[in-house]
Amino acid sequence: MKVTVSRRAHFNAAHRLYKKDWSNEKNNTIFGKCNNPNYHGHNYELIASVTGEIDQETGFVIDVKILKDIIKNEVEDAFDHKNLNLDVSEFKSLNPTAENIAVIIHQKIKAKLEGHLDLEVTLYETSRNFVSYSGK
Amino acid sequence: MKVTVSRRAHFNAAHRLYKKDWSNEKNNTIFGKCNNPNYHGHNYELIASVTGEIDQETGFVIDVKILKDIIKNEVEDAFDHKNLNLDVSEFKSLNPTAENIAVIIHQKIKAKLEGHLDLEVTLYETSRNFVSYSGK
Amino acid sequence: MKVTVSRRAHFNAAHRLYKKDWSNEKNNTIFGKCNNPNYHGHNYELIASVTGEIDQETGFVIDVKILKDIIKNEVEDAFDHKNLNLDVSEFKSLNPTAENIAVIIHQKIKAKLEGHLDLEVTLYETSRNFVSYSGK
Amino acid sequence: MKVTVSRRAHFNAAHRLYKKDWSNEKNNTIFGKCNNPNYHGHNYELIASVTGEIDQETGFVIDVKILKDIIKNEVEDAFDHKNLNLDVSEFKSLNPTAENIAVIIHQKIKAKLEGHLDLEVTLYETSRNFVSYSGK
Amino acid sequence: MKVTVSRRAHFNAAHRLYKKDWSNEKNNTIFGKCNNPNYHGHNYELIASVTGEIDQETGFVIDVKILKDIIKNEVEDAFDHKNLNLDVSEFKSLNPTAENIAVIIHQKIKAKLEGHLDLEVTLYETSRNFVSYSGK
Amino acid sequence: MKVTVSRRAHFNAAHRLYKKDWSNEKNNTIFGKCNNPNYHGHNYELIASVTGEIDQETGFVIDVKILKDIIKNEVEDAFDHKNLNLDVSEFKSLNPTAENIAVIIHQKIKAKLEGHLDLEVTLYETSRNFVSYSGK
Repeated sequence: MKVTVSRRAHFNAAHRLYKKDWSNEKNNTIFGKCNNPNYHGHNYELIASVTGEIDQETGFVIDVKILKDIIKNEVEDAFDHKNLNLDVSEFKSLNPTAENIAVIIHQKIKAKLEGHLDLEVTLYETSRNFVSYSGK
Repeated sequence: MKVTVSRRAHFNAAHRLYKKDWSNEKNNTIFGKCNNPNYHGHNYELIASVTGEIDQETGFVIDVKILKDIIKNEVEDAFDHKNLNLDVSEFKSLNPTAENIAVIIHQKIKAKLEGHLDLEVTLYETSRNFVSYSGK
Repeated sequence: MKVTVSRRAHFNAAHRLYKKDWSNEKNNTIFGKCNNPNYHGHNYELIASVTGEIDQETGFVIDVKILKDIIKNEVEDAFDHKNLNLDVSEFKSLNPTAENIAVIIHQKIKAKLEGHLDLEVTLYETSRNFVSYSGK
Repeated sequence: MKVTVSRRAHFNAAHRLYKKDWSNEKNNTIFGKCNNPNYHGHNYELIASVTGEIDQETGFVIDVKILKDIIKNEVEDAFDHKNLNLDVSEFKSLNPTAENIAVIIHQKIKAKLEGHLDLEVTLYETSRNFVSYSGK
Repeated sequence: MKVTVSRRAHFNAAHRLYKKDWSNEKNNTIFGKCNNPNYHGHNYELIASVTGEIDQETGFVIDVKILKDIIKNEVEDAFDHKNLNLDVSEFKSLNPTAENIAVIIHQKIKAKLEGHLDLEVTLYETSRNFVSYSGK
Repeated sequence: MKVTVSRRAHFNAAHRLYKKDWSNEKNNTIFGKCNNPNYHGHNYELIASVTGEIDQETGFVIDVKILKDIIKNEVEDAFDHKNLNLDVSEFKSLNPTAENIAVIIHQKIKAKLEGHLDLEVTLYETSRNFVSYSGK
C-alpha cells in the first residue's frame, strides 16, 4: 500500500544558460536571451514527492517536517537568493538548465532519505515551464 | 487508448493527529502542534482521477457528472464541515493523517466505480502538503 | 507617492460558528453546518497590505521582513493549529466569523505598525469565500 | 536519466457535446446542458509533457522554445477563438469531449516531435475537470 | 466598521464580439478573432464583493449562503453553458464585452441585495484579462 | 459608469538590493540576502489596471490588445531576462525594490495611455510579496 507524500518549497535565484567552450554566436542561437551575461532570474517552485509504505504506528510515509527540513538544508539554504552559476558549486561546470537543476536536487534530497523511499522532484522555472525527474 | 479523467472537489474539516496508547509526550514529539487536543482544521482539496478506455459512443471515459456525484456522496457529504476524529466512523480508530484519509477516500470511491476503471486520489491538506494513492 | 506593500501568510485552525444565548434550532438555522459542536476547520490565507510613502534611503515602504515578523508574532503564533473558539482569547465571547477574525487581525497588526502606515487585511476562509477590512 | 519537460499553454473555444444520430432527448440525457445547440465555451489550459534523455551538450531534453512553437502551430493557431464543432476539421465527426480533444492534441504534437521523445498531454476544460493522455 | 465579503463563482459561456451596424471589415479590425461568427468561449470567474457593517448578532455582513444563492439565481442559472449573444436577453443588443457583462451582473446582483450594502464585481474572462465595476 | 480593465503579464529578471554609499555591513543589515553581489532573481508578475468610461461604440474601456502591446513595449521588452541593476537605465541609480519597480512601471505605462484613463499597477515579486501603486 504505497502512498506518495509531496512537499512544496521555493527559492529565488539568478542564472545564465551558456556553454563556455561555445562561441557567443552559438550560445545566443541555442540559449537566446537566457544567455544574458549579466544574468536573469526566477522564483523556482519545487515539489519533492516521496513514495513508500504507510508506517502503521504513525500513519505517515514520512513525517512532512523531516522532508521540509531536508529540503531546507539541501536546497533552500544552498540555492535561495543565490547566483546559481557563481555561488553554487554543482553548477560551476554544469549548465543550470531546469533539467540539470532538477537532477542535482534529486541527488541531494535522495541522499538524505531512508533507502526504501522513492523520490520524484518537479521544478517549476516559471508557471509555464517545469520539469520532473524520478531518478530512472 | 486509455485516458485519465480527473475531478477536483473540496471539503473543510477539523482533525487531531495522535495515538491513544501513546503518552502525551510521545504524541507531542511525533505529531507536534497537530496533536492539539482541541483540534485544528484544513480546507482539503481532492482530485479523483479515473483511468479507462474512451467509450466510442459518448466520447467519455466516465461522465464527469457521475464522478462528481460519487465524490459528493462518498466524500463531501461524509467529511465536509466535520470533525474527522469524532464524526467520521473510519477515523474512530485510525489516525486521520493525510495518508490515511487518502486511502479511505480511495476505498470509498473505488467501490462505486465500474470494475474496469482505475482510480488515483490526490489529497491536498494545504497547498504545500499533499499525498497521492492509487491502490497499488 | 503612496505605495501599498502586501505580504501573504497562512494558518490552519478549527472553529465553530454559534451564539451561546441562542437555541440550537436558531443556531442551526443561521449557521447551518458551521455550527457543528465538534468543530470543523480551514486553511486561512491572510494578506496584510501596508500603505505609506517610500523611504528614499531604502526604497521600502516597510521592510517585508518586519511585516513578516509582525504577522508571525501576532497571527501565526496565536492562531495556527489552534481551535479559535477554545484556544484564542479574542474569540472566547466573539463569534469567529471571517468578518470578526479579519477585524481582530487588523487590530493586532495595526498596533505594531508605525502610526503613519495604513493597513488593510484580506482573509480567505476558502478560495471561494474571503473578507477585507481596512479599519474604516 | 530521463527527465520530463512540461510546457503550459491555453486556448479559448466554443463547443457543443452531442451525437448526430441520437435523438434530442437522448443527447439531453447524456450531455445535459453541454448539448446547448447555440454552444457554450471554455478557457482550455494545456500541459504538454515531453520525456527523454538530457542532451549533454545543451542540458535540454527539448528546447522549450521548440515545444512552445509546436504547441502554437498545432494547437493554438488551430483551436484558439474557434468553434471546435464548426471550425476544426478533426471534430466535424468526432464529439469534442475533453477526452477526444486530448487524444487529437496528442496526435498532432507527437507527429512533430523527434521519435525518441515520449509525450503526455493534460487538458483542463475547467479548473475542476481535466484529462490526461499519454498515447498508451 | 465596514467589512467587505467576497464570494467567487464561475460560469462557462460562448460569445462573439461585434457590432451589427458595422461592416465585417470594421468588426474584424476592432474585435479581431473575437468576431468569429461561429463564436468562441470562456470559463468566466466572478467575484462579487459586498460591503457593509458587521451585524453584531451574527457576526456577518451578509450570510455567504444568501450571496451564493443570489449569484446562482441571477448569474449562473442565466449565463452558465449559454451562448451570451443568442441565449441571454441582456446581450441581444448589447455587445458582450467583459466590461458590459460586468455591468449587467452588477445590476442583477445589486437589485437583490438590501439597499444599505455596496457591491463590486470582478469578472475574469481569462486568468490574464479581467474587469471590475462598483457602480460608480 | 467607470470600469477597470486589468491585464496580467510577467517578466523574469535578476536584481540586487543595496545602496552604493552605504558600507557593506549596513547593506547586509538592511537588505540581508537580497544584497548578494552576484545577484538573485524573480519571476515578476504584473497586473496593469486601467480605469475609465465604457466606449458606447465598442463596449471597451480600452482594447486589451492595446494595453497588452503597451505592456510588452514598455515593460517586457525592457525588463524581461535582464539584470535590473546593470541592464535597465532607470535602476542605474535607483534601488530596484518592488516599490521602486512599480513606480517606474507606472510612469512608463501611464505615459502611453490616453490622458483620461487612470492606472494602477500591482507587481508580484513572489506569490507572497507584492506591491501596488496608483500614482496618488
